[in-house]
Amino acid sequence: MDVTEATALIADMGRKARAAAQILSRAPTAQKAAALRAAAAGIRARAIPILAANAADMARATESGLAPALLDRLRLDEDRLSGIAAALDAVADLPDPVGQEMDRRMPANGIVLTRVRVPLGVIGIVYESRPNVTVDAGALCLMSGNAVILRGGSEAADSNAALHQALVAGLVAADLPCDAVQLVATRDRAAVGAMLAAAGLIDVLIPRGGKALVARVQADARVPVLAHLDGNNHVYVHAAADPAMARAIVINAKLRRTGVCGAMETLLIDSGFPAAPALLTALLDAGCALRGDGRAQALDTRVTPASAEDWDTEYLDAIAAVAIVDGPTAAIAHIAAHGSGHTDAILTEDRAAADRFLAQVDSAIVLHNASTQFADGGEFGLGAEIGIATGRLHARGPVALEGLTTYKWLGRGTGQVRA
Amino acid sequence: MDVTEATALIADMGRKARAAAQILSRAPTAQKAAALRAAAAGIRARAIPILAANAADMARATESGLAPALLDRLRLDEDRLSGIAAALDAVADLPDPVGQEMDRRMPANGIVLTRVRVPLGVIGIVYESRPNVTVDAGALCLMSGNAVILRGGSEAADSNAALHQALVAGLVAADLPCDAVQLVATRDRAAVGAMLAAAGLIDVLIPRGGKALVARVQADARVPVLAHLDGNNHVYVHAAADPAMARAIVINAKLRRTGVCGAMETLLIDSGFPAAPALLTALLDAGCALRGDGRAQALDTRVTPASAEDWDTEYLDAIAAVAIVDGPTAAIAHIAAHGSGHTDAILTEDRAAADRFLAQVDSAIVLHNASTQFADGGEFGLGAEIGIATGRLHARGPVALEGLTTYKWLGRGTGQVRA
Repeated sequence: MDVTEATALIADMGRKARAAAQILSRAPTAQKAAALRAAAAGIRARAIPILAANAADMARATESGLAPALLDRLRLDEDRLSGIAAALDAVADLPDPVGQEMDRRMPANGIVLTRVRVPLGVIGIVYESRPNVTVDAGALCLMSGNAVILRGGSEAADSNAALHQALVAGLVAADLPCDAVQLVATRDRAAVGAMLAAAGLIDVLIPRGGKALVARVQADARVPVLAHLDGNNHVYVHAAADPAMARAIVINAKLRRTGVCGAMETLLIDSGFPAAPALLTALLDAGCALRGDGRAQALDTRVTPASAEDWDTEYLDAIAAVAIVDGPTAAIAHIAAHGSGHTDAILTEDRAAADRFLAQVDSAIVLHNASTQFADGGEFGLGAEIGIATGRLHARGPVALEGLTTYKWLGRGTGQVRA
Repeated sequence: MDVTEATALIADMGRKARAAAQILSRAPTAQKAAALRAAAAGIRARAIPILAANAADMARATESGLAPALLDRLRLDEDRLSGIAAALDAVADLPDPVGQEMDRRMPANGIVLTRVRVPLGVIGIVYESRPNVTVDAGALCLMSGNAVILRGGSEAADSNAALHQALVAGLVAADLPCDAVQLVATRDRAAVGAMLAAAGLIDVLIPRGGKALVARVQADARVPVLAHLDGNNHVYVHAAADPAMARAIVINAKLRRTGVCGAMETLLIDSGFPAAPALLTALLDAGCALRGDGRAQALDTRVTPASAEDWDTEYLDAIAAVAIVDGPTAAIAHIAAHGSGHTDAILTEDRAAADRFLAQVDSAIVLHNASTQFADGGEFGLGAEIGIATGRLHARGPVALEGLTTYKWLGRGTGQVRA
């Protein structure tokens, strides 16, 4: 597929999406929820073919040597599939943001102004590996009144197609346009380029994936991007951290699930923290490889030397970089230099040190005495999320239904003219 | 200046801006307000040299044949200058958005979550003609804790330099870093290209200007853009409009000030509106040229034929396009096809028609029975504005102090690990 063909493909999908978005933007909440519930039922009914499609993807990916963390993201089983179906039902139960009044004011000119939430329009999502994104993203876009063009990883193509079929069946069952959730069928990467260039057709692009995808989006996007970049997350164990709490949180932050974007990737230990050796030993004993600076290496012989790249690496694996830092200033500076603006945590019993860290670390999520793995819309009480935004515009941190809306100002006058 | 030199210039300014932004993001409200008040006093004290600089700009611009609407935007006089100084004092009185708590929640995991406003960081503003933007934009960025890199139109270079000097003096007087408000000194357009490419140095770019600037930004920006595009605004006179109100609003929307982005550019008259001939006559008699479709031409011989381009033109002059449309559906379709998503209005005594128009026209501001010239942050009770955002991400409509902030999530735990 050449650029012209890819451009034509996305232009056609974009036009269909725009038409669908206009219907969807005015669809009642109950109708959108019905589509989601029908899709959930469809996934349950089609478990066997969906899992077979996933098995085909897994076989190809294993053969081509996909990294273990990505294989884990790709894999579906009955549990995960019923989780995906349950997530659809859960989105159907969320409050509909469309039409919500955010603000009402009557300025001196007497015009009654209201600011009401409206859908973003047509959303493009480019993602990798995880087939559940097909369903989660499709569901969130649908519930927030947006049409969506999904472009999943080629390694998950069969799984995505099978799941997408269930979403389309749900739309049809609820009498909503099937073009509201479209999946780019080709595995050709030219389609991604065409999506990045589709200004006017796609209103917002949401990339979810690794550094290569991110680099491509940053270089080429002509469409506004809601960035969901990598999570190079830090846990800073302050001198006044509780050793038992530090041990529990650090192990959870790194090892609970290593393939999620909220996983700790770099551990910063204050040189004044007395239990540093035990903390490293606990991590190593739990199966985590450590790559450290000189002082970290001195604490345990199993710590291997870190290269300059390690401080900027999102391992998504049972590996962490470890640096010993002299106080909060050094920790905050390290995060400013190497962090990706996702989620960073301080562990300390010193409230002033925590306050300073929370104020000065400029990331989407900054935590005190909690695991970075809480970086999740559900854990935040926001419902399902489409990802964790690491950019600065529009939404930051977990992006849930509200993050997929914009607003417009409505003014009701009685004949006002401006002086 | 070649691309390498321009890139180096913007990189240097960007680094200085980043350092200033870190200080500014934590500056107390009173200190920021003091800088603004000192700058206002400085503008009043330097009125003579500022007006002399503007006279030099005006002379050059007149000689080079700048369009009358742009000449009007460029021109300063004592009244306008005292307005600019007063605007600085007014921004100093606005509530500081930085640190405001937008949301507080305690989800089931027991982590206390707050969402607090923080500055965007380093803002780049590329604008044309109006020297007051130098001061307004500088003041709004400063009050919202952002550093700013300003790149005004080359035709206003002397005026901008003189005004910028007053802003810097205000920063110095308040002991804030003078790099918080920087002005790109060169008239070379390569500097704009370098700003568009300055990912990582500039967090958000705000373009304010005409179609040529907009086209360049859309083609080249690698930095997130808060779009402030053209205002191709429509007034739709519904069949049930009050004729006297329609006449007053249409004349105000078009002619109160023709050079502002809230001015009406296209008039849509319902074929069922009985007073259409008198409305056109009133506009023509008030000095407005009209370019119409066949039915509009038939109403008054002074209406000249509209070309296809006229429906997409922001005249910024005493010119309007006029089309006769058959009902709200046609009016809404015309706006969808030709509008720029800025401000559109319906004039009618029929509440149902107004509700439909407000629901279905997808523009930043949609008005009923009021002049489009109310598209203004001050008129909305938001205080001074940096412009009217016509994009869909982040902010839409008047962008005031809050629009120049983002947020971060702060979570205070007691040792939580995720299950």
